[in-house]
Amino acid sequence: MPRHRLLALALLACCVPVAAIAADEAPKPKSTQELLDASQPSDWRTPDPANLLYMQVPAGRVVIELAPDFAPAHVDNIRTLAREHYWDGLSIYRSQDNFVVQFGDPTEEPAERKPMGSAKEKLPAEFTRASEGLAFDRLPDADGYAPEVGFSNGFPAGRDPASGQAWLAHCYGTLGAGRDVEADSSNGTELYVVDGQSPRQLDRNITVVGRVLKGMELLSVIPRGPEPMGFYEDPAQRTPIVSIALASEVPEAERTALQVLRTDVPLFAQLVEMRRNRNDGWYKVPAGHIDLCNVPVPVRQPPAG
Amino acid sequence: MPRHRLLALALLACCVPVAAIAADEAPKPKSTQELLDASQPSDWRTPDPANLLYMQVPAGRVVIELAPDFAPAHVDNIRTLAREHYWDGLSIYRSQDNFVVQFGDPTEEPAERKPMGSAKEKLPAEFTRASEGLAFDRLPDADGYAPEVGFSNGFPAGRDPASGQAWLAHCYGTLGAGRDVEADSSNGTELYVVDGQSPRQLDRNITVVGRVLKGMELLSVIPRGPEPMGFYEDPAQRTPIVSIALASEVPEAERTALQVLRTDVPLFAQLVEMRRNRNDGWYKVPAGHIDLCNVPVPVRQPPAG
Repeated sequence: MPRHRLLALALLACCVPVAAIAADEAPKPKSTQELLDASQPSDWRTPDPANLLYMQVPAGRVVIELAPDFAPAHVDNIRTLAREHYWDGLSIYRSQDNFVVQFGDPTEEPAERKPMGSAKEKLPAEFTRASEGLAFDRLPDADGYAPEVGFSNGFPAGRDPASGQAWLAHCYGTLGAGRDVEADSSNGTELYVVDGQSPRQLDRNITVVGRVLKGMELLSVIPRGPEPMGFYEDPAQRTPIVSIALASEVPEAERTALQVLRTDVPLFAQLVEMRRNRNDGWYKVPAGHIDLCNVPVPVRQPPAG
Repeated sequence: MPRHRLLALALLACCVPVAAIAADEAPKPKSTQELLDASQPSDWRTPDPANLLYMQVPAGRVVIELAPDFAPAHVDNIRTLAREHYWDGLSIYRSQDNFVVQFGDPTEEPAERKPMGSAKEKLPAEFTRASEGLAFDRLPDADGYAPEVGFSNGFPAGRDPASGQAWLAHCYGTLGAGRDVEADSSNGTELYVVDGQSPRQLDRNITVVGRVLKGMELLSVIPRGPEPMGFYEDPAQRTPIVSIALASEVPEAERTALQVLRTDVPLFAQLVEMRRNRNDGWYKVPAGHIDLCNVPVPVRQPPAG
């Protein structure tokens, strides 16, 4: 079985097309990488450093993009908390398999909690916002959780024409603000990152504040807590947070250079269609559909020069 | 903010209902755990040990249920491979973030690969089967990848009335057989387990052979390989497989006692509805929908006695 192993492995990755079976058949379709390599500079955006968080854990740096268009009050508070080093020395204290990692201050006793400095203790709930005036690159695909789905400046989102509201969706890498029973009980100190099957039932029920652009693989392998809901029995099992800082506060030479593919360009729609209907020779039945949370938004290191 | 921390954390778990706000309001809805505690013995099934694989990795035992109803030839081969200790001493050689771990023999050169003993080198593709005669507990929820979705003896599945075919779905924990370009090129030696966002585009394109019942948290934290598609640069980074054995070949005293909730009982439908429309006080907007791969199938240790 020549090359059996290599191909069996490679093709499962869903991204590497195989050469056409014979040279006289249809021309070989371009791969995702080939399309990205042929992209124009204008297909990419460079996130505003004031919207980027660098979360330093022992394994490396996680880069998060904040979403002030959807959660302005929370993002403002998170910027303040980051500037004042709120999370430095705190920990990831929860890791629940197929769901989330959560971080901040696990202390339950209010008097003993880390002071919030000049950040606000109380924020409004920011579950949804008016869709008017909002960028929304709609997918044609049906969705069970929202009348319409698509991307807003790179963020997966839902939209309801009937209510005129839009909201960020819970996909892999989504960053949200943990809250109590009351809708307005999150203050941005306790944050979670989705690292399991998209928990879309949380959409419109909690404030989403951003998403991870780079470094998810550092969070997704954090050992699951043995307690119900992924808490750790022993505080020593928690993963320390070295620091969380705004990129704009970090010297330019120490920043992570990255660009994100724009979701309002034809290239993005083309890449999504390639994944909706794979034509790489390996797939025998194209899906004819793609779920919102299965759409990747490419991130790259800016090309030299 | 009394109890803020505890609740903010607990509620994100989506499973623990909160007491009604005041005692004179509607009666407190039962929690998932309370419903399970009140279940009848007949609500549960004990998987056939001949359909269970014990995958021993350094961190512990992963229990997998095979699906002979969907992939009889592959399951038969896998049973043979397990009986003959094919995987013992091999490794998990691929871990791609938000996708799969894959294991078996990474050797590419056919002549150098581990011999398959009395297992078959060639198997038919078993991507779909006739839905006639197949148990199928249908969900009412719409799905983008299949005309109908539901569970077949606990396995998430799709069904198409037009073609009369049914197939297993790629959800978190699904076990599939890696293949080459040719549809019938899998032989069951190279297996993958889904540990990311459900890659439903693989449905009907590859043979699904089972799903993990217990121990996913041992696989999902395996460090991601740095190479494209999650391979490791250095073989030393691979995770060794101590052994993979059929439960039926393991002395009874060493077996993992477990039961799986039946998916054809009213209790299962009730639990799904609870997750489709959460009524625990924390959720402000019930989703009114649940995706196939968001439905958990409870597994328990059999009660004493």
